[in-house]
Amino acid sequence: MILPTISDFDITTAQLAAQRQSVLTKPSGSLGKLENLSIQLAGITGFLYAPLDQKVVIIMAADHGVTAEGVSAYPSEVTRQMVFNFLNGGAAINVLCRQAGARVQVVDMGVATDFENIPGLAHHKVAYGTKNLAIGPAMTNAQAEEAILTGIKVVNHEIDAGLDIVATGDMGIGNTTPSACIASAMTGLPPKQIAGRGTGVDDQGLKRKISIVERALEINKPNPQDAMDVLCKVGGFEIAGLAGVMIGAASQRKPVVVDGFISTAAALIAVGLSPNVQPYLIAAHCSVENGHRAMLDHLHLEPLLDLNLRLGEGTGAVLAFHLAESAVRILREMATFEEAGVSQKE
Amino acid sequence: MILPTISDFDITTAQLAAQRQSVLTKPSGSLGKLENLSIQLAGITGFLYAPLDQKVVIIMAADHGVTAEGVSAYPSEVTRQMVFNFLNGGAAINVLCRQAGARVQVVDMGVATDFENIPGLAHHKVAYGTKNLAIGPAMTNAQAEEAILTGIKVVNHEIDAGLDIVATGDMGIGNTTPSACIASAMTGLPPKQIAGRGTGVDDQGLKRKISIVERALEINKPNPQDAMDVLCKVGGFEIAGLAGVMIGAASQRKPVVVDGFISTAAALIAVGLSPNVQPYLIAAHCSVENGHRAMLDHLHLEPLLDLNLRLGEGTGAVLAFHLAESAVRILREMATFEEAGVSQKE
Repeated sequence: MILPTISDFDITTAQLAAQRQSVLTKPSGSLGKLENLSIQLAGITGFLYAPLDQKVVIIMAADHGVTAEGVSAYPSEVTRQMVFNFLNGGAAINVLCRQAGARVQVVDMGVATDFENIPGLAHHKVAYGTKNLAIGPAMTNAQAEEAILTGIKVVNHEIDAGLDIVATGDMGIGNTTPSACIASAMTGLPPKQIAGRGTGVDDQGLKRKISIVERALEINKPNPQDAMDVLCKVGGFEIAGLAGVMIGAASQRKPVVVDGFISTAAALIAVGLSPNVQPYLIAAHCSVENGHRAMLDHLHLEPLLDLNLRLGEGTGAVLAFHLAESAVRILREMATFEEAGVSQKE
Repeated sequence: MILPTISDFDITTAQLAAQRQSVLTKPSGSLGKLENLSIQLAGITGFLYAPLDQKVVIIMAADHGVTAEGVSAYPSEVTRQMVFNFLNGGAAINVLCRQAGARVQVVDMGVATDFENIPGLAHHKVAYGTKNLAIGPAMTNAQAEEAILTGIKVVNHEIDAGLDIVATGDMGIGNTTPSACIASAMTGLPPKQIAGRGTGVDDQGLKRKISIVERALEINKPNPQDAMDVLCKVGGFEIAGLAGVMIGAASQRKPVVVDGFISTAAALIAVGLSPNVQPYLIAAHCSVENGHRAMLDHLHLEPLLDLNLRLGEGTGAVLAFHLAESAVRILREMATFEEAGVSQKE
């Protein structure tokens, strides 16, 4: 599999942004992560004031064989039903995109049902859901490659149509289980510190889920040094696709706002495959899902929002679009000490 | 001093909002604090879908006698200079208000200089700055009353002009010191756990600041059971004014988004004077200023943003306007399980 080259972060432009932040009429550093974000966006895009007009969320949907183990509070058919909800504009992500002025692209990466030719849905089904990772590998190497390359193709298509910043979204009943497997494999932390309640399993359900993650890791023995191996053995098609979106976006110097637990699992895979992706990632929020903080720490990402979200779909990432816009506006529009005639620090 | 009556939080409308959240197409509770916020806004306003069209930040500016002790990294004249920056649209708060579609009202509550009759500036100077609280009371009882009643008057004026939600902003070189005094007095925590670097004093400066706060509390002995006593002895005119804004807004069922360290000190005073104010308050963010988390805990408020802000001006509060809008839109626009034909939890 040949992945696109990712340019180095543009340190020169980032430094110009940092310099400008230091002469704006506020104590240096007092806008905290917003200042860092404006600097990061400059370094990603190569523009002092990163253009952010065209905002897109790519929602990748897929099913998971591991649902046979009873790991989710919702039945599998909800994946398909929610795809229709996205297309009809009724889901949380649609509401937040209308507010943020972002467009939604829904992609079937591996839902366990056939869709008609529906406007707004991109058809890239790799298979009718993954195999049950609790008894063997979730997918073949060929399927993982196909899914990653599809993610790259999908984001390239959006970039051709005009995309300045992308948010990653997911839909897939059962997908906190593969995400927990990936997180546990890549961070080295035990499943009981990583797995959470997902859509809302009870204590019994959580216990079962943890034991499924433990079993999946025992049986499959994914190699943490080999992100492709981890993805094939304990991943999902939407996770693979989102890793591709991240790699594709980074290769074209577009900022990627990473949503919650599932998107961050995809980020672990993306950075495992292409370490140069890391500086192009922006963490939107810290989920209530147990292992999310550890995953963000592993990736050296700091979340912006503290909202106890655990929905996915890209909801947290699209909420963070407002903050990305704030960061660039601050850098562009604030007066300097000199312009405003304000005295500097004594 | 006669304060306006504050109605009880509208539990019936809040319950309707909670009911609706539970049938929208997402796992119940998965939008975390956004769900709570939509419920709170319903209970505050009495409308299931709280109107939020007219957003206003009220920035109150004042000077502080305690700057004579060298507690700030910036000279006092910056208070006046920043007032001009607000009026000219060059400050961070102006940028964020343009993005959020909010208007700015700047109020001179006690800047140590005379302003001409400048369009956009409301003149309510109580005095040319407070007295030095390190050697005696910051203000008289009459001054504190005047400042609080002014805050109520200012917000009422804005409500008459059309205001659906208000953010509190402050400007006053030195004002983290009175805020730390208030926080320490009201929470009972020692100054060294509360005081922070403000606009950016160094280690030596921080030590001095802590000792000033300790001395102010020792000399003035503010009574934590008596918010008025605390305000007079160790407060500030902008802090008193913002407490008035909170009381006035709550009395008219308008939601108040509380900014950072200084605004939260004002909230401690407001809730001390009128405990019914509490349910009308929304905490925007948790500042890096040391004691802010403890103050929020004391008020039973949970912050929404995690941005390491420490600027004031209402910047964090105006950033949170986007989230308030998201909360109401989610409640109003999302499809229910029934409407979307999505299966419920098993």
